[in-house]
Amino acid sequence: MEDHTAKSPTAAVLLIGDEILSGRTKDKNLGYIADFLTARGIDLCEARVVADVQGDIVAALNALRARYTYVFTTGGIGPTHDDITADAVAAAFGVKIDHDPQAVKLLTDYFAEIGREPTQARMRMARLPDGAEMIENPVSVAPGIHMGNVYAMAGVPKIMQAMLEAVAPQLQQGAPVLSRTIEAHFGEGDLGGPLGELQVRHGGVSIGSYPFETATGFGANIVVRSRDRKALEAAVDEVERLLATLAAQPASRPWI
Amino acid sequence: MEDHTAKSPTAAVLLIGDEILSGRTKDKNLGYIADFLTARGIDLCEARVVADVQGDIVAALNALRARYTYVFTTGGIGPTHDDITADAVAAAFGVKIDHDPQAVKLLTDYFAEIGREPTQARMRMARLPDGAEMIENPVSVAPGIHMGNVYAMAGVPKIMQAMLEAVAPQLQQGAPVLSRTIEAHFGEGDLGGPLGELQVRHGGVSIGSYPFETATGFGANIVVRSRDRKALEAAVDEVERLLATLAAQPASRPWI
Repeated sequence: MEDHTAKSPTAAVLLIGDEILSGRTKDKNLGYIADFLTARGIDLCEARVVADVQGDIVAALNALRARYTYVFTTGGIGPTHDDITADAVAAAFGVKIDHDPQAVKLLTDYFAEIGREPTQARMRMARLPDGAEMIENPVSVAPGIHMGNVYAMAGVPKIMQAMLEAVAPQLQQGAPVLSRTIEAHFGEGDLGGPLGELQVRHGGVSIGSYPFETATGFGANIVVRSRDRKALEAAVDEVERLLATLAAQPASRPWI
Repeated sequence: MEDHTAKSPTAAVLLIGDEILSGRTKDKNLGYIADFLTARGIDLCEARVVADVQGDIVAALNALRARYTYVFTTGGIGPTHDDITADAVAAAFGVKIDHDPQAVKLLTDYFAEIGREPTQARMRMARLPDGAEMIENPVSVAPGIHMGNVYAMAGVPKIMQAMLEAVAPQLQQGAPVLSRTIEAHFGEGDLGGPLGELQVRHGGVSIGSYPFETATGFGANIVVRSRDRKALEAAVDEVERLLATLAAQPASRPWI
């Protein structure tokens, strides 16, 4: 029920890495980025997960960057052979990629400071697509990549989170989406009919229903979302009246 | 480094729901399905997350079902107005959707048994696209949807997991992907060069490098994967020799 036509900025997330698709790594970045964007009024409209296959990464990048205001990627920017995100970004934009003098200096200085050899593998992290800018990495220095409307960040959550903070000031913000959650101790099967009618009458809000189970019973969280406070309050009032009406009827059970 | 040309069955996952993209719900289904498929030798090649927008769901379904052996979806099959997966599956396949007599009987009997009204909302869950089959739901009876190579399951993890077990016997299995993890106490910047050369020499395996941090230091898990046990063992032997060589050099630090 998101309104894709609103003027708020939109975004997509692209998670890159075999390890997420094999199940070896359980992704923690999508939920974090979703919270980050929602707090800034940026509508996250889509997410994808692809393997470390250049053609797949390029296809996803091109589909997403054409459609949304921003694309945030995670993973594949380290020093090993399976880190191919920088090359994929270059290929997606049809530009060359090479060692960037500024990035080379940044990393050379850093490796000298911490007593590391500037191996060829490490210096791969100083490669940038033509026209790209670095995203600051306050954790381990090796930069992320900002190219057009694409922000390529690390897969390690701590580094990804720091990079997201670093790019935050550059991002256009939207009006915040206001959200109210009303806990209903009824099954969705009792709520569903009248709630659907309520949604039709309140087109300016998005109403979601999320069943839950606790030790003492079942219910649903009714989440009402809108950028318009008056519209939100009007819908919430009506949801509360609906629940009061249902409370006068026999209690319900599971999400059925 | 997945081999998309192998004859093993492939799969995509499509997570459906505004709540995942808003950050309100942190998805737990993708990792579970990934483990499930990997254990059966089915290659999970891609995943997507879309909002409760029919056009977006249909577009994703059609892109994925054309490309992979199986598509598993989660979410949007409940009784409320934002549950539109069944309609989206019908639209994707270009067929009509209506109440299915078998599903109607199943749900009517169940609601009678547990003393629930067969409300219009509840009976929405008995709607199936023409030609679809039900996926058994031993938790709360309302069925999932099997249509062509698409399996549409619930979003509630407990129900999703039960549905996955129910469809398991129908799925073609692939040769299991064998996997060995070698813990390296070196930074990826030290490993990267020789590991990349090793990958080139061992084309029959996929080598991933995943940095980690513990209280006592940094390192990387080198994951070698293959369906060919001999190829796997040969690559693992060489990784272990590489690590022994590196151990004779000064110890390394972070994922740099």
